[in-house]
Amino acid sequence: MNVPAAEVTEHANRRAGGRLGRKALRGTPIASFPTLVRKIPVYQMVPDEAVELIHQESLSILEEVGCEFRDDEAIAMWKAAGADVSDTRVRIDRALLMELVSKVPSEFTLNARNPQRSVRVGGDNSIFVPMYGAPYVRDLDNVRRYGTLADLQNFHKLAYMAPALHSSSSIICEPMEIPVPKRHLHIIHSALKHSDKPFMGIVTSRDRAEDTMAMAGIVFGEDYVRDNPVLVAITNCNSPLVWDATMLDAMKVYARHNQPLILAPFALCGASTSASAVGAVAQVNAEALAGVAFTQLLRPGSPQIYGQFMVTVDMKTGAPMGGTPEAAQMMYLMGALARKYRLPWRTSGFHVGSKLNDAQAGYEANMLMHAAILAGANYIWHSAGWLEAGLTCGYSKFATDCEQLVGWYKYAGGLPFDDFKEAMAAIREVGPQGHFLGTQHTLEHFESAFFMPSIMDFNSYEQWKAEGAKDHDTRGREKARNMLADYEEPKLDEGIADGLEDLIALREEKLPDSVS
Amino acid sequence: MNVPAAEVTEHANRRAGGRLGRKALRGTPIASFPTLVRKIPVYQMVPDEAVELIHQESLSILEEVGCEFRDDEAIAMWKAAGADVSDTRVRIDRALLMELVSKVPSEFTLNARNPQRSVRVGGDNSIFVPMYGAPYVRDLDNVRRYGTLADLQNFHKLAYMAPALHSSSSIICEPMEIPVPKRHLHIIHSALKHSDKPFMGIVTSRDRAEDTMAMAGIVFGEDYVRDNPVLVAITNCNSPLVWDATMLDAMKVYARHNQPLILAPFALCGASTSASAVGAVAQVNAEALAGVAFTQLLRPGSPQIYGQFMVTVDMKTGAPMGGTPEAAQMMYLMGALARKYRLPWRTSGFHVGSKLNDAQAGYEANMLMHAAILAGANYIWHSAGWLEAGLTCGYSKFATDCEQLVGWYKYAGGLPFDDFKEAMAAIREVGPQGHFLGTQHTLEHFESAFFMPSIMDFNSYEQWKAEGAKDHDTRGREKARNMLADYEEPKLDEGIADGLEDLIALREEKLPDSVS
Repeated sequence: MNVPAAEVTEHANRRAGGRLGRKALRGTPIASFPTLVRKIPVYQMVPDEAVELIHQESLSILEEVGCEFRDDEAIAMWKAAGADVSDTRVRIDRALLMELVSKVPSEFTLNARNPQRSVRVGGDNSIFVPMYGAPYVRDLDNVRRYGTLADLQNFHKLAYMAPALHSSSSIICEPMEIPVPKRHLHIIHSALKHSDKPFMGIVTSRDRAEDTMAMAGIVFGEDYVRDNPVLVAITNCNSPLVWDATMLDAMKVYARHNQPLILAPFALCGASTSASAVGAVAQVNAEALAGVAFTQLLRPGSPQIYGQFMVTVDMKTGAPMGGTPEAAQMMYLMGALARKYRLPWRTSGFHVGSKLNDAQAGYEANMLMHAAILAGANYIWHSAGWLEAGLTCGYSKFATDCEQLVGWYKYAGGLPFDDFKEAMAAIREVGPQGHFLGTQHTLEHFESAFFMPSIMDFNSYEQWKAEGAKDHDTRGREKARNMLADYEEPKLDEGIADGLEDLIALREEKLPDSVS
Repeated sequence: MNVPAAEVTEHANRRAGGRLGRKALRGTPIASFPTLVRKIPVYQMVPDEAVELIHQESLSILEEVGCEFRDDEAIAMWKAAGADVSDTRVRIDRALLMELVSKVPSEFTLNARNPQRSVRVGGDNSIFVPMYGAPYVRDLDNVRRYGTLADLQNFHKLAYMAPALHSSSSIICEPMEIPVPKRHLHIIHSALKHSDKPFMGIVTSRDRAEDTMAMAGIVFGEDYVRDNPVLVAITNCNSPLVWDATMLDAMKVYARHNQPLILAPFALCGASTSASAVGAVAQVNAEALAGVAFTQLLRPGSPQIYGQFMVTVDMKTGAPMGGTPEAAQMMYLMGALARKYRLPWRTSGFHVGSKLNDAQAGYEANMLMHAAILAGANYIWHSAGWLEAGLTCGYSKFATDCEQLVGWYKYAGGLPFDDFKEAMAAIREVGPQGHFLGTQHTLEHFESAFFMPSIMDFNSYEQWKAEGAKDHDTRGREKARNMLADYEEPKLDEGIADGLEDLIALREEKLPDSVS
């Protein structure tokens, strides 16, 4: 990994016809919703004083216990900033912490290669982002197996086609057949090629992060991506209270490019936090704030996303759970803290522990999505495909989630009152014991009034039986298959497409086939 | 149906040893949660002005269009009360309407035959009640077939055993093999015999309502049930704007006994209401208020439950749907109206359109339960078993819902802060990169901190596979089977048990085997 990314980019840019800039892309127009602007109030589960109490406890943890930053450069930067540093332990006083956190913009634009797919993150805006990181897929034949590049491409295609998804994520599943050192190139390539929505960066090493930026530079322009957010990258704090070298390396690359990171502790509540929902939130908040603050040492004013991944663990087996009541409750607390700090906030929507797209998955998924929406989450991740605590991405689950998101998009858009007068006139017209199917109001509104999912089946039992008595999981797989059959690629300009391929070829020449 | 219920009751009471009174029952102690007292704030989706606007429109409908009351006695009562009556159409001015509505108590106690199972309805109290009215069951072998008395008994047993269920309902499924004229006797008998929780009355005719009261009188004492709520009975307005004779007959019997009715329009939104969520709510509110007001003509000050059953219909097929976004949104509006009127409020929790206990069922169920809880519903009906828009009660769904309710009970109980100090001490004790499994705080709290469902499976994939790779539906059936194997009847006093059987025998002698 010794080829500087900049050199490769330069070569690729030349081949693609000079500085490429950001271009509107050709390709088939496909329905895609703009940023969801929430029109419903947020729900706060506890009073402001309780939020303040948690906040103060979080700051005390960072002052008294501190947080590990396992990287020399990071430690030097914290020292220079005036933190109390001892070896890799950084104790941050509350004034310094909050001063740094306050530099983060409360909203920003996340740019897509198709400007019509660019979205706003923060404030009243919410976006839905598919899952990330599954080594396994549950495939179109309902077999659980390792993910492949073909699977990943399929999920990027589905993400492109799902109107309520605002991002293509990146590693929706791992293309396990590609050697690890080269894998990131093909992941980013697939996301950029098969969809025109925002995507997510690679964080597993500094070089891979730089390769991501190089590829983004080919698509958006090298200058453009020095300052304009075109991707989001996830960095997880290792709870309790450790930011490790790999994460810090990724932060350096992305934050210095003004690319937003998600600063999200990965907390198995009860194991890597105390067995207290409120205690877990206080700890995770401290961890997230420490990460957010560090990004502002790297690039003050850079857009960042405060976040959390918090699941409770089964205290008998240690297994992570998914859509449990406490996970929802903790979301409301995190959302309240994010609002207090005026930070864009990421949580997870449809993440579940279920192995299958079955009843468990459904109960878990909507336990959490309802909370994510009402808590006012901005970056609602893991909103499609997630099964088995993230180990598996399911085609059926992906299609199901995409459809459900359309309903949630409508839900968060609020209750329309604009046709209320006409609706009341319809009641006067119909009177007792009539029906409304023929009224003018109904004829004008029947398509838009109510969400009508297609994978869910509301037909009569007899009709459903005549159609094969299929369960939801089966119908979800059929839907995914049908969507893929209809896919048309939103093609990259030829020069850009060639530039990306050249860069990959150049990088692959230098990269080993296995991790040494 | 010519035998006066009072006569039968008198005979049965003699056989049972005179006036029986209300007795604490013997039987196996089994875990049962008290009334859920919500410790989290309600969520209001629209501002107060919007609630007021809907309220005013509802009142205008009742003044201008009016509501049908298809019963001579009811019409006479409305005339006497000063309403504008023309044939069966009753136009109620807002002052009269609100005066009657204001007589309803905002809270009441619903008494169980075991006083420890008595619950509060209204205010910050919530209770979970299993489903009602399914002709079909999806049985322990996953076969859909007509319900039987044995099934109904099983569901009453499960309701008794489910700690978070606060009622046994009554017609959880229809015992289809019993002739309709006699069926109600066996339904109520099963509910009273197999469970010691509150139950629900029969509403399909005046005689059957009186039989219900007679049976309740045997268990609780004839005098007792003239004034003390021991059951809840459902009356549905036929939307739009018709209260029919059958419903009015049931109202007369129960309200005059001071037994609470649910006044709940059954609305297929888009067909029996306008294609507008807000318009549907304004109409349903008018219908429910008209029903509530009528009960106060029957018995001023009697406890009543304002309610709704509202599902949207698929506008292409007319099929009722279940857990859709608009159904949840409408709940928030109905909840806000109920609070405005200070009325106990019923909505539905886990009601779904799905044929199976599959992913569809799960997504639908938690879409609605989350809203029911946050909207502050008091009588959360259809909280166990419901499938297929209510046509089917599923054993697996029943067991699943019962377990999920434990989680929702915990959720609505709020976030405990009482151990926050100890939890923060644990973080200081553990520090970075430790784990919390051995801390004193964890040892003290690991069983209570987090909800740990047993039907849901969070084991490793390998473990799950080794145990048969069962889906949630299969595990739910196993759970139901295991619960039934453990059931022990909370026996009625011998005199009461005999009294009920005598009453049934006496009534059956006089009742035909088919509806003439």
